Amino acid sequence: MPVRLSGFLHSALGNRTSLQLLRPALAPAATASHQLEGTGLPRGERRRLSAQMNKNSSNIMALAPNTSNKRETVCIFGTGDFGRALGQKMIQSGYPVVFGSRSPQTSNLIPKEAEVLSHTEAAQKAAIIIIAIQRQHYDFLTPLAEILRGKVLVDVSNNLKINQYPESNAEYLAQLVPGAKVVKAFNTVSAWALQSGTLDASRQVFVCGDDMEAKQMVMDIVRALGLTPLDQGSLLAAQEIENYPLQLFPMWKFPIFLSLGLTAFFFFYCLIRDVIYSYVYENKDYSFFIAISIPNRICPVVALILLALVYLPGVLAAIIQLYRGTKYSRFPDWLDKWMLCRKQLGLVALAFAFLHVFYTLIIPIRYYVRWRTEDGIISKALSNKTDPFNNTNGWLSDSYLALGILGFFFFVLLGITSLPSVSNSVNWREFRFVQSKLGYLTLILCTAHTLVYGGNRFLSPSSYRWYLPNAYMLSLIIPCIVLILKFVLIFPCLDRQLTQIRQGWERNPQYSEQSHYIINKSAV
Amino acid sequence: MPVRLSGFLHSALGNRTSLQLLRPALAPAATASHQLEGTGLPRGERRRLSAQMNKNSSNIMALAPNTSNKRETVCIFGTGDFGRALGQKMIQSGYPVVFGSRSPQTSNLIPKEAEVLSHTEAAQKAAIIIIAIQRQHYDFLTPLAEILRGKVLVDVSNNLKINQYPESNAEYLAQLVPGAKVVKAFNTVSAWALQSGTLDASRQVFVCGDDMEAKQMVMDIVRALGLTPLDQGSLLAAQEIENYPLQLFPMWKFPIFLSLGLTAFFFFYCLIRDVIYSYVYENKDYSFFIAISIPNRICPVVALILLALVYLPGVLAAIIQLYRGTKYSRFPDWLDKWMLCRKQLGLVALAFAFLHVFYTLIIPIRYYVRWRTEDGIISKALSNKTDPFNNTNGWLSDSYLALGILGFFFFVLLGITSLPSVSNSVNWREFRFVQSKLGYLTLILCTAHTLVYGGNRFLSPSSYRWYLPNAYMLSLIIPCIVLILKFVLIFPCLDRQLTQIRQGWERNPQYSEQSHYIINKSAV
Amino acid sequence: MPVRLSGFLHSALGNRTSLQLLRPALAPAATASHQLEGTGLPRGERRRLSAQMNKNSSNIMALAPNTSNKRETVCIFGTGDFGRALGQKMIQSGYPVVFGSRSPQTSNLIPKEAEVLSHTEAAQKAAIIIIAIQRQHYDFLTPLAEILRGKVLVDVSNNLKINQYPESNAEYLAQLVPGAKVVKAFNTVSAWALQSGTLDASRQVFVCGDDMEAKQMVMDIVRALGLTPLDQGSLLAAQEIENYPLQLFPMWKFPIFLSLGLTAFFFFYCLIRDVIYSYVYENKDYSFFIAISIPNRICPVVALILLALVYLPGVLAAIIQLYRGTKYSRFPDWLDKWMLCRKQLGLVALAFAFLHVFYTLIIPIRYYVRWRTEDGIISKALSNKTDPFNNTNGWLSDSYLALGILGFFFFVLLGITSLPSVSNSVNWREFRFVQSKLGYLTLILCTAHTLVYGGNRFLSPSSYRWYLPNAYMLSLIIPCIVLILKFVLIFPCLDRQLTQIRQGWERNPQYSEQSHYIINKSAV
Repeated sequence: MPVRLSGFLHSALGNRTSLQLLRPALAPAATASHQLEGTGLPRGERRRLSAQMNKNSSNIMALAPNTSNKRETVCIFGTGDFGRALGQKMIQSGYPVVFGSRSPQTSNLIPKEAEVLSHTEAAQKAAIIIIAIQRQHYDFLTPLAEILRGKVLVDVSNNLKINQYPESNAEYLAQLVPGAKVVKAFNTVSAWALQSGTLDASRQVFVCGDDMEAKQMVMDIVRALGLTPLDQGSLLAAQEIENYPLQLFPMWKFPIFLSLGLTAFFFFYCLIRDVIYSYVYENKDYSFFIAISIPNRICPVVALILLALVYLPGVLAAIIQLYRGTKYSRFPDWLDKWMLCRKQLGLVALAFAFLHVFYTLIIPIRYYVRWRTEDGIISKALSNKTDPFNNTNGWLSDSYLALGILGFFFFVLLGITSLPSVSNSVNWREFRFVQSKLGYLTLILCTAHTLVYGGNRFLSPSSYRWYLPNAYMLSLIIPCIVLILKFVLIFPCLDRQLTQIRQGWERNPQYSEQSHYIINKSAV
Repeated sequence: MPVRLSGFLHSALGNRTSLQLLRPALAPAATASHQLEGTGLPRGERRRLSAQMNKNSSNIMALAPNTSNKRETVCIFGTGDFGRALGQKMIQSGYPVVFGSRSPQTSNLIPKEAEVLSHTEAAQKAAIIIIAIQRQHYDFLTPLAEILRGKVLVDVSNNLKINQYPESNAEYLAQLVPGAKVVKAFNTVSAWALQSGTLDASRQVFVCGDDMEAKQMVMDIVRALGLTPLDQGSLLAAQEIENYPLQLFPMWKFPIFLSLGLTAFFFFYCLIRDVIYSYVYENKDYSFFIAISIPNRICPVVALILLALVYLPGVLAAIIQLYRGTKYSRFPDWLDKWMLCRKQLGLVALAFAFLHVFYTLIIPIRYYVRWRTEDGIISKALSNKTDPFNNTNGWLSDSYLALGILGFFFFVLLGITSLPSVSNSVNWREFRFVQSKLGYLTLILCTAHTLVYGGNRFLSPSSYRWYLPNAYMLSLIIPCIVLILKFVLIFPCLDRQLTQIRQGWERNPQYSEQSHYIINKSAV
Repeated sequence: MPVRLSGFLHSALGNRTSLQLLRPALAPAATASHQLEGTGLPRGERRRLSAQMNKNSSNIMALAPNTSNKRETVCIFGTGDFGRALGQKMIQSGYPVVFGSRSPQTSNLIPKEAEVLSHTEAAQKAAIIIIAIQRQHYDFLTPLAEILRGKVLVDVSNNLKINQYPESNAEYLAQLVPGAKVVKAFNTVSAWALQSGTLDASRQVFVCGDDMEAKQMVMDIVRALGLTPLDQGSLLAAQEIENYPLQLFPMWKFPIFLSLGLTAFFFFYCLIRDVIYSYVYENKDYSFFIAISIPNRICPVVALILLALVYLPGVLAAIIQLYRGTKYSRFPDWLDKWMLCRKQLGLVALAFAFLHVFYTLIIPIRYYVRWRTEDGIISKALSNKTDPFNNTNGWLSDSYLALGILGFFFFVLLGITSLPSVSNSVNWREFRFVQSKLGYLTLILCTAHTLVYGGNRFLSPSSYRWYLPNAYMLSLIIPCIVLILKFVLIFPCLDRQLTQIRQGWERNPQYSEQSHYIINKSAV
């Protein structure tokens, strides 16, 4: 069909369109592909364009109109950086582009293939208008309301701060131009990415809007630009979409600050016990312990504490539910927040465990360790005495190493299942099995690893320098509390009651009734 | 548009809707965000709701009707735990909810914002009715057939066992209420997840149904609740969807049981050879070998056997195809099952290889190894003799370590490419290249690693205790068979024939014809 | 609804359909599941079919017509391997299939459930026609143009080479049969995968076409076959889709060849310095260094150079932009290509770093190292002298190990964030933070690791054998250049200007104007 009508459409669409299409078509093949390389498009998009261009160059009359048939003119209000970048990209994807500008004659940075008109003229040429200007200047649209009636307005704006305005920019736009169909899109893509496109970031474009058809039109453009549209529902989602690009790992902040705090604390703790104490009492300079020995004390300690903190809120929640006898009452605020960042806590713990493993594995390569071994052997050889093999030490040493390896193995397994693509491919039951059963197994193994490592040193007074116990002893407190509480909670009497409560049963329905009432009162 | 009509719609929708919308709107901002934290919504959903609430609080008249305009009333039949949890979540997302109950007056756990009516009354208020009751009680819907005509019925039920009933619950529902449009959805989400939502499991909701529009309506609700709808096609998919949440790693069972069986066998095998033999003949207590030495014999042996078992079925299939001269005949049942769990077999093998690597790397840290080294050096020093460097041993030692490292490297690469998101981003040719070429390279490297490790110990009689060879010798049997068979199969004459067969050629078309006939006869 | 009409539809659809549906229905359950195993369908699809079959066997009259109601007849032109495989699969999914063939009577390999007719007869029976023949034979369709008017033609063809023809096969088909709606699909799936289906490759089917409805129909079929349709837009995307399955890691070629080249160069470099030099001057045979010692020199060197090459193009691009004073001029071709494969360069570098880590960790297990240690200790013990502990060496040794571990840790972190599913779940700002900030941190740590490893050996003449410096000294050149340039670029004066340029500012708008003019001239 398109091919049949090509001749007619070709002339009907006029000079500009055909010119625009002929230009790449007549360029030599090398230039075509060169042009594409330069635009830094994603692999797929580049190939598609390359295909299109190569095709055009050999088969102009048949296919050029095909393109003109498909791509409707798009209007862009605003000739700033983002507007230009978007326009350039759209032209490359075969869209005729019209810019709407206050001063059409001075815009010399605009792609040559695009027309620059006044706002009114430009708006009349297209069904879709991209508003690539700052929110503060949206009010210039009010006089254009009649012309914009029924048009699709695409809000691409971002703010400088999260929740900067009470309503999202897109909703504000919808209020200003009530007759238009507002769609939020493209705000998660940067102008630099559109132009250079070489960083392999997310190609996802969140789209939301109240009008299904308008949204579909915008999603088609997104797809044509080589990006992936993601329908986020109605315009109510716009604020979330506008906040999205401003965030920097929001759920990671608490776990990372907590781990940094713990690291700093244990660093000074170990510094005092291992370096300063030796310097004061033995006058030995162990300052080089800062590089490996002390980090290798901090990492396992922080990893174990963080891992225990992943499972502590679940235990606390169960206790609260058992105490209240219902699941229909709210948890304290801090507990909710804590539960929401458990995955991140666990992954930070895994990072520390990873460091601990590699710090431990390079121990035999360290100069200090090699020197100490050598020194010990030579002095023994010279004094002509050998130690007999101690079977208990053999058992202790091998056990804590084996427990550590198994703990790390299950920890890595937990980390792999928390990858988005893996956790998406398991069902709820499987996910709970992995995260709960394997998680507790990991905690038990890591706690046992630390306990066996301690061996019988807990009672030895030489472990207490300046009355400070070894760091690993401190790290055992929280894990042991979590494991004991969990052990109590799986007693049949408590477990049965908890299961009932979680299935909706209430010990004292009155309590819940009342709490509902309280919530309602506080809300009204 | 929505804003313009807001005043009218506002009053038209009546008291209830506006009250429901005003309540969060009037709550202080802190309460709003607090409420959201407590509901344990996913990050995105929470932000969206927070945006909506904050917005409402500052701009009530403009936006509240916008919401009421968008969200249609949803009816829920059944006031059990899941119905209540779903209702609560829908109310939070801005849906007016009506519960249909046998005894509307006694349901005091139902969210206060929802109305509770009789089934008939409730059904008349909404176009979408969620059937949150057990399949056994579906027959109460038969008398309501007239009222439910043309309504969208959402079946959210699950069973207790896989394939519990001959037809899926959703199809049973469609038979009971033939005039309604049945959609299956939400059964993969747990009530606990909807309420607490803090576990980071899959947010995917499988949706299927015969009516496209009805399915679209349900998918919009799913999206509004912050979950990801996945269209699974027609209602025929319902049984699969109902079985999905009941499964616990179905494809992993055989590989895991197989590996546990092999582990147990080799554990006792090594126990006899290494611990009991030494105890009986040398009266030495090597029981601590159980912690590391024996696991580090078991892991590589099991990993190598499992890796060979990944490639054995492919070789067997090729032999069967060559023998039969056609690819259009069925493989034996066991071979099909085996081929389907090759990925899982490979990943379990990788887990064992991972453990082997870390068990090996901590060798120099073990007390036993350090003691043995020390003891050896001291006795040599005291007896004043030194071993000259043996170049062959240097080669053997370094070769088997290098082969092991390279084998592990390619094994990890295979594991990474089997991650869902990675395997989705390669094409068929690339996937086959990685899994077949790199897979065989891994098998060759790991087999060579074991062979070189053995070195010339194969012939030494001291390796055979109680006529039992070393475990690694046993582990070489299957890999060597696979590699020899594969080597024979890539001989040009066989390879050409196999390629032809796989492209559809048949040596003896009669054979296939006949087998078709047989299949047909047995089927009719 | 479907069930109500079942009786009528059942008879209306006639003998063939019911027969086709009854056959699996009457087969014993064992056969049904057996049949499915054999087809090697994906887990989901198998369960769905199994459900369907088991259901049919117990509930034939209700559900069989449901199926016949849903699945429209599909016609397949061509009885080659792919056509047969696709037909078989469609029949299993409940589609009535009609084959169109030149010689209908001789096609004995065609599934028995399918009818074989002449092209004209077959085309009349279905709305969708799958063209499973080679592009060279498409011209036989020209006489059928009238019959194919308005039909959906699915082009499933592939070529043997990338960009083999000037236009894609699908577009050629659309030109040949202008009245038909051409959809490109299924070309990324292999016939072998459809039949055996046991390899876990991508289930994604790229679909493109100009007619939305036709595309939707094809996507429904794709979904019914248990595959995942991906809408790629208009028929313009066909060439890309046809090139897709022919590619073998196109973006990986340059990084892999570069790394192989570097590996070969440094292998011979180290061979000369470490093996041949020793052999010539000391007459010692260190040939076994080839297994581990030399690879462990090559790997870190190549990894560090590749890592620096990831960040060099960004620095060069910034310099070019600063020099030109605009971002609107094109980068040189080689720079664009380089920037596009940075991710792959980084991952190859990570692979070399991974090998370096494991080569290093097994050092204490090597026979050569153990022998050397032993020999050294014994000779010291016999000569009765001990080295005092050297604090500087302790610091140097521990520092370079610690820097290496931290560098590897951040490198692995970078690798994890480049997994598709992880990079999809971060926003642009987060991605840039990780890839730029953490990337430079990794580069700094790894460069420092190498510098400290060198220690004061840079000045020692013994490091220069045959005037050749150590390999690690060579590896430091590029990283140091990159870090120095980057350090200069973050000077406030330059950084501010660069930021302005990247926000669209131009130092000399005339320049850009001119360059635009030049591009246009060369293009027209």
